[in-house]
Amino acid sequence: MGLLDQIEYPSDLRKLGIEQLPQVCKELRDFIIDESSRNPGHFGASLGTVELTVALHYAFNTPYDRIIWDVGHQAYGHKILTGRKKVFSTNRKLDGISGFPNPQESEYDSFIAGHSSISISAATGMALAAKANAENRSIVAVIGDGALTGGEAFEALDYAGGSKTNILVILNDNDMAIDANVGGLHQYLIDVITSPSYNRFRDKTWNFSTKLSQFGPDLRELFKKMGRGLKSLFFKESNLFESLGFRYFGPIDGHNVFQLTRTLQDIQHIPGPKLLHIHTQKGKGFKPAEEEQTEWHAPRKFDKETGEMIPLPDKNTIPPKYQEVFGETLLELAQKDKRVMGVTPAMATGCSMNILMKAMPDRAFDVGIAEQHAVTMSAGMAKEGLIPFCNIYSTFMQRAYDQVIHDVALQNLHVVFCLDRAGIVGADGVTHHGLFDIPFMRAIPNIVVAAPMNEIELRNMMFTAYSVEKPFAIRYPRGGGEYLKWREEMQIMPIGKAECLRNGEKVAVLTIGAVGNTALKAVDKVYTDTGKMAAMYNFRWIKPIDSELIAEIAQSFETIITIEDGIVAGGFGSAVLEELESSHFSGNVVRLGVQDEFVPHGTQQELYKICGFDFDSIVKQIETSIN
Amino acid sequence: MGLLDQIEYPSDLRKLGIEQLPQVCKELRDFIIDESSRNPGHFGASLGTVELTVALHYAFNTPYDRIIWDVGHQAYGHKILTGRKKVFSTNRKLDGISGFPNPQESEYDSFIAGHSSISISAATGMALAAKANAENRSIVAVIGDGALTGGEAFEALDYAGGSKTNILVILNDNDMAIDANVGGLHQYLIDVITSPSYNRFRDKTWNFSTKLSQFGPDLRELFKKMGRGLKSLFFKESNLFESLGFRYFGPIDGHNVFQLTRTLQDIQHIPGPKLLHIHTQKGKGFKPAEEEQTEWHAPRKFDKETGEMIPLPDKNTIPPKYQEVFGETLLELAQKDKRVMGVTPAMATGCSMNILMKAMPDRAFDVGIAEQHAVTMSAGMAKEGLIPFCNIYSTFMQRAYDQVIHDVALQNLHVVFCLDRAGIVGADGVTHHGLFDIPFMRAIPNIVVAAPMNEIELRNMMFTAYSVEKPFAIRYPRGGGEYLKWREEMQIMPIGKAECLRNGEKVAVLTIGAVGNTALKAVDKVYTDTGKMAAMYNFRWIKPIDSELIAEIAQSFETIITIEDGIVAGGFGSAVLEELESSHFSGNVVRLGVQDEFVPHGTQQELYKICGFDFDSIVKQIETSIN
Repeated sequence: MGLLDQIEYPSDLRKLGIEQLPQVCKELRDFIIDESSRNPGHFGASLGTVELTVALHYAFNTPYDRIIWDVGHQAYGHKILTGRKKVFSTNRKLDGISGFPNPQESEYDSFIAGHSSISISAATGMALAAKANAENRSIVAVIGDGALTGGEAFEALDYAGGSKTNILVILNDNDMAIDANVGGLHQYLIDVITSPSYNRFRDKTWNFSTKLSQFGPDLRELFKKMGRGLKSLFFKESNLFESLGFRYFGPIDGHNVFQLTRTLQDIQHIPGPKLLHIHTQKGKGFKPAEEEQTEWHAPRKFDKETGEMIPLPDKNTIPPKYQEVFGETLLELAQKDKRVMGVTPAMATGCSMNILMKAMPDRAFDVGIAEQHAVTMSAGMAKEGLIPFCNIYSTFMQRAYDQVIHDVALQNLHVVFCLDRAGIVGADGVTHHGLFDIPFMRAIPNIVVAAPMNEIELRNMMFTAYSVEKPFAIRYPRGGGEYLKWREEMQIMPIGKAECLRNGEKVAVLTIGAVGNTALKAVDKVYTDTGKMAAMYNFRWIKPIDSELIAEIAQSFETIITIEDGIVAGGFGSAVLEELESSHFSGNVVRLGVQDEFVPHGTQQELYKICGFDFDSIVKQIETSIN
Repeated sequence: MGLLDQIEYPSDLRKLGIEQLPQVCKELRDFIIDESSRNPGHFGASLGTVELTVALHYAFNTPYDRIIWDVGHQAYGHKILTGRKKVFSTNRKLDGISGFPNPQESEYDSFIAGHSSISISAATGMALAAKANAENRSIVAVIGDGALTGGEAFEALDYAGGSKTNILVILNDNDMAIDANVGGLHQYLIDVITSPSYNRFRDKTWNFSTKLSQFGPDLRELFKKMGRGLKSLFFKESNLFESLGFRYFGPIDGHNVFQLTRTLQDIQHIPGPKLLHIHTQKGKGFKPAEEEQTEWHAPRKFDKETGEMIPLPDKNTIPPKYQEVFGETLLELAQKDKRVMGVTPAMATGCSMNILMKAMPDRAFDVGIAEQHAVTMSAGMAKEGLIPFCNIYSTFMQRAYDQVIHDVALQNLHVVFCLDRAGIVGADGVTHHGLFDIPFMRAIPNIVVAAPMNEIELRNMMFTAYSVEKPFAIRYPRGGGEYLKWREEMQIMPIGKAECLRNGEKVAVLTIGAVGNTALKAVDKVYTDTGKMAAMYNFRWIKPIDSELIAEIAQSFETIITIEDGIVAGGFGSAVLEELESSHFSGNVVRLGVQDEFVPHGTQQELYKICGFDFDSIVKQIETSIN
């Protein structure tokens, strides 16, 4: 029986001797590798934090002490050590545990952690609460160097440093976001890591100055006399984090569980804002993942002995993912026109902008986890005549909403937003579904909001957006499209014009986006089963919406069914209702989509079903309405 | 004839000798004081940048070179020197010039600048475009130390520093946002300013080490041998901005126009990212404004000789502002319950949270310009059992949308968002109207969204939000309420229940928020004029909406008029439409509010009229519908 078998909760871990911790780490790492080889998930980051996780739960009194993981995909080890080892095989599956920390799942999950860069803010709030409640708990935020580039992390460092809040920030520095990390801060951290240890250096300098005193004047005294400037350079403010008011410790090896544990034990009672800088390796302990960190960020199923992943299906036999169509089409547009640029905040691989990046490195810009900056930088480019395609997952576009309004739409700039992963995303779950972009985007004047039904439409919408000098937002889902032969010649689509896919009677089905394919099959199925054909319209454009067509539909049908892969409050169906008013439509309108609740994790198909717009639900709705 | 009279455009300025610049500065400052005394606007910041403005347009070839002001209320001098001197008296008035830079107004306004912290991102995009277009222009971002705390500024510093983008950032450091600035960065900047000049210090250290060599070993050599750590401390990375990859210059006196001009001329051709740190005084040159910077941030009309502002109306004769009711009520709640806290990102005076701050300094937190952090910190507090009231102007809440969804609503935390300045705000204009919060807030599950019709309702909604453990958003407008006697005992309101204010026939008027007062008068006016009474409902709650009442209304009326002070796409009227669908209402629905366009500046009354929901427009709409 291994040590891990004896650990259900951190209290069990804390019964062990410190000398047993390396063995716990080894078993925990093996457990993660074993489980992830069979049930894919975020792999690399969690392997990198094995020692940190063990050290944290050993040194701190969790759950009384709070640990906030930023982002949460570092936290598999944490989940396994906090009561979820036996259910870990359900990770990211419907009704199983979540891939990210979630307080509704465990009291050890102190805060939600699907979007990055929030941990220091949350920790600051929790520390203020602890003070107000006279609780003497420790609050620890564990933040990756990728997440640290998000502006909110800086806002929080600035505030916590200035207000001397009692928190410990652990900077888990592995040189990586999902893709290689970028930015000045990144280079700075490398410098800190590769120069002699900052603390050691500081000590050395001090000793050095003492030794020098033999040569004449007391150099140490002279140093002092040079006043505050020098003193601060050497002893307080020479480090970026110390500039902001944090006590800085490190860098230390994040895979040395003894050093980690002792350091955490030592510094936990020092009051005020503290930052411990640890250096880790993504994928640590699994050779292929150490070597190819982006590929192993969240791998498919793999053989844990050989490191071979299950092969991808032959590209020629299945339709491409939407993201690939985006990536390939962007490259074509960039080749066609030198004004076309790509901008993405740390989603270069995920959105396939790496295709452009590889082919034309000076035309694509990964700005790191920095959605706000990505949008405003795109606006700056457009202001000067470029045509930036700015790709941000729908869920992360929530981070840059103000910039879309203020910097792009208000100036009516020609920026093309491509919102990948719009709608239900599947296993990443509640924090990652892109549910809100239709209402929040269509509220904005000047902008065109579109959603393609398939990859050919995505291509043509991108071409249309490239051709028409206006702000555009094109939303499309996670996953695969419809056609093997999608690389047709690009066409400009008439903006605001829907297409009729089926003529029919009594019932009109109005869809936006890829869910139209399911709806079309449902319409045909109802016809096959009942002999009754509903009409079917692929709307393509949410804004401007095809108001003429809606007026016609209002005259001809008894029931209108709208279907969208997103929240219905203020969504596409609501836009249809707004248009219907001028037609005094007195029939039924049924709006399918995500109703007024957050959606859990599971496969996309499972979740469509739960939300009531999978194939069966649509068939049933049409049948009910048509009879 | 003064020098300023000879300057229409910067090209005229550049014809002058450098020795004439102080006189230009004096005249420009007098002009701003004179104009602002008669036509109020953002005063203090623009007085602080007089010398900088003159130096910039003298040293750079504007408009070919780009200047981006962040935020734009520093830019009155810029407007006066760039073709708008003669129309400056129209500043912030309907059809007059905008109080903020706006490219639609002048080619000298390189980028819109109503929301802070965006200039470095925009400059980075523009510099990338200049490079792509082989243009050799300079791109200058002028950012205040207040604006610098916004996370996007850091994202941009990080990216521009890392990618070696060719921009000049001028940090206009005056120790202030609207209120006193906060945070670790703020303290750091003070340290830099008050220590010996960083550059001078650097030189001194170098010389010092040379002198020491007489005592034995060549200390300079020893320093070198200590390797990269020491070298970087002394020569590259010891400054926060240099840590991020910027070349740092300064700090220099921002009121010395010669030094400013020469420095700008010197550094403009140095490639790569540069930051010039200047120190200025808000209100410079106008004694009362130098002394009371918050009060003179945007003063009322004043006597330019005595500095006396026109007196405020007697508090006992006019109803209070909504913000004051918020501030006083928050204090009462905080006195009642020690869990109640206040959080605001740099709007403490504007939202009247300074009342709580003064009375109970440990219960209110101004986190600086950092909306995202403000929301997540509030979430952290709520997670640990506190009840934070987080006040953010509606327009700035766009900055923290993701945090409202991910950190608050998803965890169903008891945070009360108070959205001041919701709807049309008046003179601040297009960048500051709070138009989008109804659609973007009501799309979110779990949250209650409310808008009071008057200050008593605001009070009671705050009390209700305090009493019910859910996320709340309460939106209310800029300006004054309705009642002198508003400090009634607080009552819990039934959530989701509207009130009927007039029974009537044929037409039902459904309003949300303070516009209900105008609508009520309009309903009564129509009755007086025509003898026909429309029904009138104050809805109070946008989410959950009173669906039962809507079903009743659908049965009884021919026309429904919804009125909201916000964008109608996905707004309150749209929420009413969504409910009406289940009632098969076949009458008319007219949705008054802001239609699908951005709204300019002017008085609130002027803009209500333009948008079609002022008193006259509502009367007219009711009359049309009722006849």
